[in-house]
Amino acid sequence: MGRAEVKLEDIFYPESIAIIGASSDEQKEQSGWTGTLLNFGFKGRLYPVNPKASKILGLQAYPSLKDIRGKIDYAILNLTPTLVPMALADCIARGVKVVHIFASGFAEVGNEQGRRLQEEIHSMTDRANIRLIGPNCMGVHCPEGGISFANLPRKEGPAAIISQTGAGAARTIIYGSVRGIHFGKAVSYGNAVDLDSPDFLEMLAGDVKTRFVALYVEGVKDGRRLFTATQKCIMKGKPVVVLKAGLTEAARGAVMSHTGAIAGSEKGWEAFFAQTGAIRVYTLEEIVDQLVALQNVQGPGGRRVGIIGRGGGPGVIATEICEKMNLRVPPFSVAVRHQLEQITTAAGGSMIRNPVEVGIGRTGAQQGYVEAFKILAESQEVDLILTHLNPEAFMLYGGVPGWLNDSVDALLGVFKTLPTPVALVLPSGETQESREIVQKAWTRCSEEGLAVFRSYESAANALNKLIRHYEFKDRV
Amino acid sequence: MGRAEVKLEDIFYPESIAIIGASSDEQKEQSGWTGTLLNFGFKGRLYPVNPKASKILGLQAYPSLKDIRGKIDYAILNLTPTLVPMALADCIARGVKVVHIFASGFAEVGNEQGRRLQEEIHSMTDRANIRLIGPNCMGVHCPEGGISFANLPRKEGPAAIISQTGAGAARTIIYGSVRGIHFGKAVSYGNAVDLDSPDFLEMLAGDVKTRFVALYVEGVKDGRRLFTATQKCIMKGKPVVVLKAGLTEAARGAVMSHTGAIAGSEKGWEAFFAQTGAIRVYTLEEIVDQLVALQNVQGPGGRRVGIIGRGGGPGVIATEICEKMNLRVPPFSVAVRHQLEQITTAAGGSMIRNPVEVGIGRTGAQQGYVEAFKILAESQEVDLILTHLNPEAFMLYGGVPGWLNDSVDALLGVFKTLPTPVALVLPSGETQESREIVQKAWTRCSEEGLAVFRSYESAANALNKLIRHYEFKDRV
Repeated sequence: MGRAEVKLEDIFYPESIAIIGASSDEQKEQSGWTGTLLNFGFKGRLYPVNPKASKILGLQAYPSLKDIRGKIDYAILNLTPTLVPMALADCIARGVKVVHIFASGFAEVGNEQGRRLQEEIHSMTDRANIRLIGPNCMGVHCPEGGISFANLPRKEGPAAIISQTGAGAARTIIYGSVRGIHFGKAVSYGNAVDLDSPDFLEMLAGDVKTRFVALYVEGVKDGRRLFTATQKCIMKGKPVVVLKAGLTEAARGAVMSHTGAIAGSEKGWEAFFAQTGAIRVYTLEEIVDQLVALQNVQGPGGRRVGIIGRGGGPGVIATEICEKMNLRVPPFSVAVRHQLEQITTAAGGSMIRNPVEVGIGRTGAQQGYVEAFKILAESQEVDLILTHLNPEAFMLYGGVPGWLNDSVDALLGVFKTLPTPVALVLPSGETQESREIVQKAWTRCSEEGLAVFRSYESAANALNKLIRHYEFKDRV
Repeated sequence: MGRAEVKLEDIFYPESIAIIGASSDEQKEQSGWTGTLLNFGFKGRLYPVNPKASKILGLQAYPSLKDIRGKIDYAILNLTPTLVPMALADCIARGVKVVHIFASGFAEVGNEQGRRLQEEIHSMTDRANIRLIGPNCMGVHCPEGGISFANLPRKEGPAAIISQTGAGAARTIIYGSVRGIHFGKAVSYGNAVDLDSPDFLEMLAGDVKTRFVALYVEGVKDGRRLFTATQKCIMKGKPVVVLKAGLTEAARGAVMSHTGAIAGSEKGWEAFFAQTGAIRVYTLEEIVDQLVALQNVQGPGGRRVGIIGRGGGPGVIATEICEKMNLRVPPFSVAVRHQLEQITTAAGGSMIRNPVEVGIGRTGAQQGYVEAFKILAESQEVDLILTHLNPEAFMLYGGVPGWLNDSVDALLGVFKTLPTPVALVLPSGETQESREIVQKAWTRCSEEGLAVFRSYESAANALNKLIRHYEFKDRV
């Protein structure tokens, strides 16, 4: 029997789940798998398995897998590692389609017992018509399928993440949710004894709901397959953002003790990025920044950035950071400067050369802010407008906290009408007062589809990589 | 008469201030200089000058400087630029010691009029017994002296900032205040016609209240003097953190239009940093990160870092980032691993090789977390312990928000008892729930003198530069 019988998409939409090793201590199981799935709103059949309980959290409990009637699409193994092979054998005998081994204690431990146990489940899986997620991982998150491994945001969206780390996947989903990036599908796949990153990538390449894919990978069994699967995604118009962890010496050791993976060589991975066009990032936060740029900044036609904001020093810093990230901040023509002179208070210290400093200070958002966007967009002298608001530097001069709201109103009113894409840098508030105001502004902008970044570096970095991605696609 | 008659320390402690150009519109002046100084709690005499008003915000107003009896230590010129030379002449005639020109519209505008006006005030100042701050700047902030340019935090501390940008100084002071970094003295000095960064640095080198100096500089008139003044500070045990802005091409232009300064060459500045031991940073946020490291991480003896935290993937990422920042994450000896095995659940997936992953998860802070610190500190195998807590990745698994508080309790209880310095990475919360909890944890740690960073990069970057600074001091 071929393994193709299990359609990979189905792992996100199980109709029935067995939880092998559900606790008979109901308080404990409330934060365990049964409680998590119930709370997340799983709509299918849930079968907690525990020989010592008759009911768990209101559900009938089963002494063993054999006692469950009806098909079982998905089994979660929450057991000490030495008990896993026997439970896996039961799953295979029972015709379970997908097994998620939550348990740790396999190759990642680095001792003989762990390696032997992992080999054992590997060879069992290889011979059987079953697909395995893990071991040593959190498994699947899919709001549409009603399945998750934690109390994660339920909003669906076009992003997906494939991750060897569960903590990282959770953090990315949460962080994304406040930045307007919503994950329709996620998987934490740990030691990857059977299902590995290329399997998930191939599946997502064909998934109509997924438009962007993020990947946290420590190692991969078949590099060639990863290459092909990544290429397939990108050629289908789905950018792939990759955090390849564990390429320095100590990190290599850390990877070995985390998922037992072989990290590979920096050189090999450089070739992977150069040839596939996958976007390389180095932290979980950068994954989200990159997805924000991909989702909300519509293909700038080049690298020329116009900077509009308030604060002379911050404008200088923004310019320098853009240039260091391979963006260009060209001085405007005399004609454009002349237009800007009309709307700024150039004689009063405003900068009009690029960066532009305009009056959005004490007296609230002025029409000049909006006009500056129009002038730059119509000038054809820039491909992208980066605007920055520094509420803390200004709110406190005059005690006018409304100015941020006014500025955001002005910005949200104009950015969609322009032919030139816009991104906003809005540092997180640090004082009690500013924190709340800034957070509300972030939420508003994210919901309206404006790309917002916390710092010049994160913005310039993500925009540079975005443009490089388009340049790659233009070449191939 | 020599210019030495004005003691530079005095600019921070004026006993009387004249505000030339105070508005007769009281609502406007409430957020102007008179209101700002009154609100900040200035204890000396305030003289608002305006020929059209008899009282401003309850203070007697004066038609001109000549009408004020008694000495005037400090005058703020809030006028259109063309009126500045005449007002300055009045100040000189009246024997005012320090003049702060808030007004913009001088060399930074880049036109003939601006340049001429700046030359005019320059030559007036050169011939007179007066010191000038500005033009085009915010002036002085000193809680002890009761003077500030905005509604800034009033808490005093050992940090000082000298900045060509006012917005940047304000943001740094605010950001510092929530990170346990309090500024006793700050100055925004703009175009630096008279007083320039070396003057302020020399003064701070001899100031008993200042222990750390930050400098945001776009250009300097006398590079040699800056070099000497920086060296003097550092030799007196006061580290100097420098953000040199405007060294890329467009940023150079931005600097010219911001403060009219000549930015200098990257090569010259590289020599400056290499020879003085000043710490180079690139953003305002990095200034604060560096001050946190300087203030709260007591001189690690080397570059070996032990990493303790929760989350496998985050541990791998932390390791890699440390190594990229020239820190070392050495694998522990068999003896230390054996000790760690006793306190972690290694068979259940914990990492004990360095990084260390210990049980601080669902069940709250466990004694194991504290034990791990003790084992690493006593091992003599690391010079520094970096610990990371990832509340969002874990709080949501089990809905146990108390675990962060428990972990922080444990950490604060142990870190001061160790011979090895400790730093914490605690990402800012993103959800409504986690944001508040994390913010409280940040405040607690900062108040207790524990160095807290928002990300692995910012921590590793600041720690690398801290160690490099000590290495420099060991050599010279």
